Amino acid sequence: MLIEPIQKSQISKRFVEVRSYSVSLCKPLQTEDYIPQPVAFASPPKWHLAHTTWFFEEMILKKFSTDYQEFHSHFSFLFNSYYQTVGERAIRAERGSITRPSIEEVYAYRSYVDKHIVELIENRPSNELEELIILGINHEQQHQELLLTDLKHTLHFNPIWPVYEQEYDLTDDQNRSFSWISIPEGVYEIGHQGDGFCFDNELGRHRAFLESFEVCEALVTNGEYQEFIEDGGYKNFKYWLDEGWSWIVSEDIHHPLYWKKIDGQWHQYTLAGLKRLSPDSILAHISFYEAQAYATWKKMRLLTEFEWEVASDQLAWGKRWEWTYSAYLPYPNFKIADGAVGEYNGKFMINTMVLRGASNATSSGHSRKTYRNFFHPQYRWQYTGIRLAK
Amino acid sequence: MLIEPIQKSQISKRFVEVRSYSVSLCKPLQTEDYIPQPVAFASPPKWHLAHTTWFFEEMILKKFSTDYQEFHSHFSFLFNSYYQTVGERAIRAERGSITRPSIEEVYAYRSYVDKHIVELIENRPSNELEELIILGINHEQQHQELLLTDLKHTLHFNPIWPVYEQEYDLTDDQNRSFSWISIPEGVYEIGHQGDGFCFDNELGRHRAFLESFEVCEALVTNGEYQEFIEDGGYKNFKYWLDEGWSWIVSEDIHHPLYWKKIDGQWHQYTLAGLKRLSPDSILAHISFYEAQAYATWKKMRLLTEFEWEVASDQLAWGKRWEWTYSAYLPYPNFKIADGAVGEYNGKFMINTMVLRGASNATSSGHSRKTYRNFFHPQYRWQYTGIRLAK
Amino acid sequence: MLIEPIQKSQISKRFVEVRSYSVSLCKPLQTEDYIPQPVAFASPPKWHLAHTTWFFEEMILKKFSTDYQEFHSHFSFLFNSYYQTVGERAIRAERGSITRPSIEEVYAYRSYVDKHIVELIENRPSNELEELIILGINHEQQHQELLLTDLKHTLHFNPIWPVYEQEYDLTDDQNRSFSWISIPEGVYEIGHQGDGFCFDNELGRHRAFLESFEVCEALVTNGEYQEFIEDGGYKNFKYWLDEGWSWIVSEDIHHPLYWKKIDGQWHQYTLAGLKRLSPDSILAHISFYEAQAYATWKKMRLLTEFEWEVASDQLAWGKRWEWTYSAYLPYPNFKIADGAVGEYNGKFMINTMVLRGASNATSSGHSRKTYRNFFHPQYRWQYTGIRLAK
Amino acid sequence: MLIEPIQKSQISKRFVEVRSYSVSLCKPLQTEDYIPQPVAFASPPKWHLAHTTWFFEEMILKKFSTDYQEFHSHFSFLFNSYYQTVGERAIRAERGSITRPSIEEVYAYRSYVDKHIVELIENRPSNELEELIILGINHEQQHQELLLTDLKHTLHFNPIWPVYEQEYDLTDDQNRSFSWISIPEGVYEIGHQGDGFCFDNELGRHRAFLESFEVCEALVTNGEYQEFIEDGGYKNFKYWLDEGWSWIVSEDIHHPLYWKKIDGQWHQYTLAGLKRLSPDSILAHISFYEAQAYATWKKMRLLTEFEWEVASDQLAWGKRWEWTYSAYLPYPNFKIADGAVGEYNGKFMINTMVLRGASNATSSGHSRKTYRNFFHPQYRWQYTGIRLAK
Repeated sequence: MLIEPIQKSQISKRFVEVRSYSVSLCKPLQTEDYIPQPVAFASPPKWHLAHTTWFFEEMILKKFSTDYQEFHSHFSFLFNSYYQTVGERAIRAERGSITRPSIEEVYAYRSYVDKHIVELIENRPSNELEELIILGINHEQQHQELLLTDLKHTLHFNPIWPVYEQEYDLTDDQNRSFSWISIPEGVYEIGHQGDGFCFDNELGRHRAFLESFEVCEALVTNGEYQEFIEDGGYKNFKYWLDEGWSWIVSEDIHHPLYWKKIDGQWHQYTLAGLKRLSPDSILAHISFYEAQAYATWKKMRLLTEFEWEVASDQLAWGKRWEWTYSAYLPYPNFKIADGAVGEYNGKFMINTMVLRGASNATSSGHSRKTYRNFFHPQYRWQYTGIRLAK
Repeated sequence: MLIEPIQKSQISKRFVEVRSYSVSLCKPLQTEDYIPQPVAFASPPKWHLAHTTWFFEEMILKKFSTDYQEFHSHFSFLFNSYYQTVGERAIRAERGSITRPSIEEVYAYRSYVDKHIVELIENRPSNELEELIILGINHEQQHQELLLTDLKHTLHFNPIWPVYEQEYDLTDDQNRSFSWISIPEGVYEIGHQGDGFCFDNELGRHRAFLESFEVCEALVTNGEYQEFIEDGGYKNFKYWLDEGWSWIVSEDIHHPLYWKKIDGQWHQYTLAGLKRLSPDSILAHISFYEAQAYATWKKMRLLTEFEWEVASDQLAWGKRWEWTYSAYLPYPNFKIADGAVGEYNGKFMINTMVLRGASNATSSGHSRKTYRNFFHPQYRWQYTGIRLAK
Repeated sequence: MLIEPIQKSQISKRFVEVRSYSVSLCKPLQTEDYIPQPVAFASPPKWHLAHTTWFFEEMILKKFSTDYQEFHSHFSFLFNSYYQTVGERAIRAERGSITRPSIEEVYAYRSYVDKHIVELIENRPSNELEELIILGINHEQQHQELLLTDLKHTLHFNPIWPVYEQEYDLTDDQNRSFSWISIPEGVYEIGHQGDGFCFDNELGRHRAFLESFEVCEALVTNGEYQEFIEDGGYKNFKYWLDEGWSWIVSEDIHHPLYWKKIDGQWHQYTLAGLKRLSPDSILAHISFYEAQAYATWKKMRLLTEFEWEVASDQLAWGKRWEWTYSAYLPYPNFKIADGAVGEYNGKFMINTMVLRGASNATSSGHSRKTYRNFFHPQYRWQYTGIRLAK
Repeated sequence: MLIEPIQKSQISKRFVEVRSYSVSLCKPLQTEDYIPQPVAFASPPKWHLAHTTWFFEEMILKKFSTDYQEFHSHFSFLFNSYYQTVGERAIRAERGSITRPSIEEVYAYRSYVDKHIVELIENRPSNELEELIILGINHEQQHQELLLTDLKHTLHFNPIWPVYEQEYDLTDDQNRSFSWISIPEGVYEIGHQGDGFCFDNELGRHRAFLESFEVCEALVTNGEYQEFIEDGGYKNFKYWLDEGWSWIVSEDIHHPLYWKKIDGQWHQYTLAGLKRLSPDSILAHISFYEAQAYATWKKMRLLTEFEWEVASDQLAWGKRWEWTYSAYLPYPNFKIADGAVGEYNGKFMINTMVLRGASNATSSGHSRKTYRNFFHPQYRWQYTGIRLAK
């Protein structure tokens, strides 16, 4: 996986590219698809398109462009997300009822803001501006992945299994290697370094001592996970963390998200529609609880995030987010930035687990080995998988 | 208020009229507005359009038209509502995530079914067919009122207060009479009689003894209700039923639904947008709890549904549903029809209160003095008001 | 069933009798049994003993006895129940955590208050005093029944099925008559009349017209109800009100409360311990939903409360509370008394159904044909049964 | 703080000592106090006494003593806790309704089991037996602390603030040092070593690299925490983790547990009753969220558990559990034991934070520097405090 640090001179081109990519992701959508938010944690496509634009308007245009006229007086309120610093916000769970502005207006909003950002880059370049635009680009890329995964989640509530895109990739992985890589004990450097962009949670580069360990080159496949199911994995509490067991019992969970048995055959819902489950595809859409239970059943374990970072140079990664058995916590000397930008990461450092890697839904240029993704252990709507260690 | 019994010979014309009216109600909508369902009790416009069509397809075409080809194999499942007799149903609270079929497909579905119903009426008329079509027409009219009130409820979640229709009526009532009408004690006949259509819950015509009572000609206005608020009506438990008090405390309720104080001035959200509250308009969007508390504060009471039915000939009614202090219960000799049609009314006869009258949102020809509307006592999204008795 | 109107001259004797009966009900208890409150709707024995005493102290001694010293400054707060007029109250669901005062102190509280009430009757008799004492006596008798039924409910959470009293009666009814009694149509008088005590909800004596009906002399037995279960009564939605069906599905209910199948044999938990289910015993511990579903399955119906009151003179009643298909609503001209006493009944007149009759747990002298008991339709911990009508 | 490794030859004496200490903790209790369980996470004293006894009966006597007659056939079921391996369990939240067996029977159960354990030690000593007895002793000591803290929590629901023991210690700390201790960077050994008892979660001794840090000798006091409150600490989201902020908003939290402002003066509920808040006492009963917010407000931070362990030799600790900013996760090479004993610790390693140290409620001989206590971040009923680092 190649990391492309963005050159400041190319910022305008990169900005346009990333902004256009969001639009291209929505090409297969009908107007109706832009609207619903069946669950509070996943937002509608329209909201993603508008909120990422809001970020550029609120954090950049209103600050750097003295004569900027905001596109619409209500949008600052409507499309703020969790930034309490910025002011009152619409309620998160009610994004799906915001039918107006229409999707056409949101696209007009995007064009309007894009035009002003490009002008600003040309007319009033500065380091601070460029840094914020790069942050905005990375913010937009995060929402690109969410747009896809949220959309998949919304569409799957429809009993007729709609198709987003016939060609959407299932990530078969038939040439994978099952070798185990050994990593020796030692003090290793952890965290981001260098000129390229990173989030604040990757900073505070520091040393960590690791005992020696072994890590599997391959991610777990659907077929391997089926063995766990067939061996009664979801019926035996001894493989599960206590809260994981409570979760599968109370939510009546017996298989990964999007799996469905039809006439005795496993199928899975994908963005290309309902498909027969391919045993050789990389497993996806499991919770941390399921990842950990599977590893326990295998008499192995998950990596920690530090082990993952150290081993990553020897791994082909990037097709699935990989649950680690590391809680998402601050690195030594982690600093929270002042103002709204400071609300980006630090405040979520409790009750969430770190995922490392990237998925096929991750936007190009938005992954690196020090990247720390994080979700609550029960979430499954991202493309999340398992890598074993021992 | 004129009741128009439908002549069987006019059934085809009436069918087309009522079906067209549903479509005309949606004229001011953008595609986005057809989709959301922010709360489980209110359905999206698209669903209303499709479900009323489903009723004609499932209950009539599939039964009477031997060579009928259903429009789409999934629609029977998608657009069933609560009819457990008919089979599996999509989950009620998830109607808002069904983005496909598109709204165009739903309109095509309507046209297809309408064409077949009209042909059926012409080619194979029968009493049973006509009765079911009349039931379907009345079912559709109920959904027309729900379409408007559900839509208003959905739009009000949007902090920018969208306008459905600039001209939508607020029901000012400036020439109202405040007189009290006296009704003498006696045995009265209650329930529907005659040839016209009625629902099963109006049948079981029977006698009831009423003590003498007085009823006010006018409905309570916004201005009168404001006095209750200003007198601390929402702060004094003694006016409230115990569950009403718990409800206003736990839901933090201090005024009718859709009222909003802006800079010290009461406003109300209407289908014509946000408006200054008109003190002379008839009060709307209150729960039974609020109606009962207001009456108690006034040292008066609400009517029972029998009192209402007996007094109705002397009242100008039809602009607001009127809460009665009668629970929705079966009349003597009430019979539940066999099959799915029997699920229409009887099974809701618990924990709901009867409303009598009609509102401005009620479709023309869909009201009569024996009509029994019913909702749980906390619901407020219908146009519900107060008539006092003593 | 004999109604004994209390003669004012015998008030002191009656007071002592009723107060002693509460104590005698607690004789089989261990100290531990006085404490728990596993569910919010049922209170611990200690609380019943203290709260009924509080009523006499707060409503009578503090008002009529000018030099009365309250027993303990905290008890007014601790043992108030729902009387919002009287002041702050301890939270209802937390009665089970009030370990202090000890049960000995509560008994001392009872003795202290009893002594002062008896002195008051002797030294300062008045009509108003006597009326309040009679109200207090009736209030205490209501709590006597609750004490038994709450206790049974608490004990049944214990997997070892404790015995309250070996001899506690199961109400076998082997000589019952299955005849049907016919009541002719007509205008009947409803509500209390005469000198004896009644609650405010029985007043507003008025006339009601009843169509003719028939009522069964016998209550439904366990054996008859078993047939309903065995015929799939709990598995077929068509017998159930919509909310009843939701209730049995969500609560996973398949039989009356306290029934348990052990090795293929039905048992029931009673205050005399776990017993084999007697098919000839009168059915008890069912919700209104179950009563209504059973009647529907039988192709019959429940009585209304007015029908019950009119028929009652021809029935042997008093062994089980009988669910009626009448909502608990105010009679015409129902008046709410001023002050705390007015909070007794009227504020519960919503979402509850009327029960008529009495049960074996009802205290002697506390039943009459105009008595209106009421509970939410899902409650089952009272001795509630079914009488069929047609 | 002295760690006393238990010599195997003294096992019988130690067993009797620890078992007696549980009984002595209950001396101030009335029978009523043994019963209630107002919240699911805290158990009644009776249950602690019985469950610790169950551990010895179930895990030891039934396995090692071939002719052992169990004390009562139901107790194995009633007093199992979360050990799913052992079989069916009574529901955790319903422990408070188990009034029978009586507290006398529970004391008899204790004596019976104690006698048999002592006999077993004398007659059939073995390493495996001794290890399990030591585990049982440590298990009992954990429940001794819970007994006190659960009891305090239960009693505080009583609006009259009962006293457990007049002399119960408030841990004033008036001679404390405010110095900062510096710890140099380096690779440190973490985890238990040596012969003494430890829990499985302390094993997997391993190395960790720590950057240099400073730690304060003193714990935060009530007075210092009051400054945070007075500076608006509970009103400014910027000090709080996102879930911490949601928690204080939804739970309406404005101060530590057991604090109460009366007539403008802070008080705190203690096991010695309600007391004026002492500003010099060590702060207790705060959640992790509050600890973290306080540290952020101070522009400092909490220690990690590894930092704490390394610094502990230079600290006077043991008066308060200290929240660390470390999630409770497995050490490298952590192994879960087979069978029920394996359910002790590992399955809780998610969504909990580590506390290090000990409190005044911790039993003597039950603390060591490698001990890992853990709770969900919102829990406050333990004696939990704050030590700052930078």
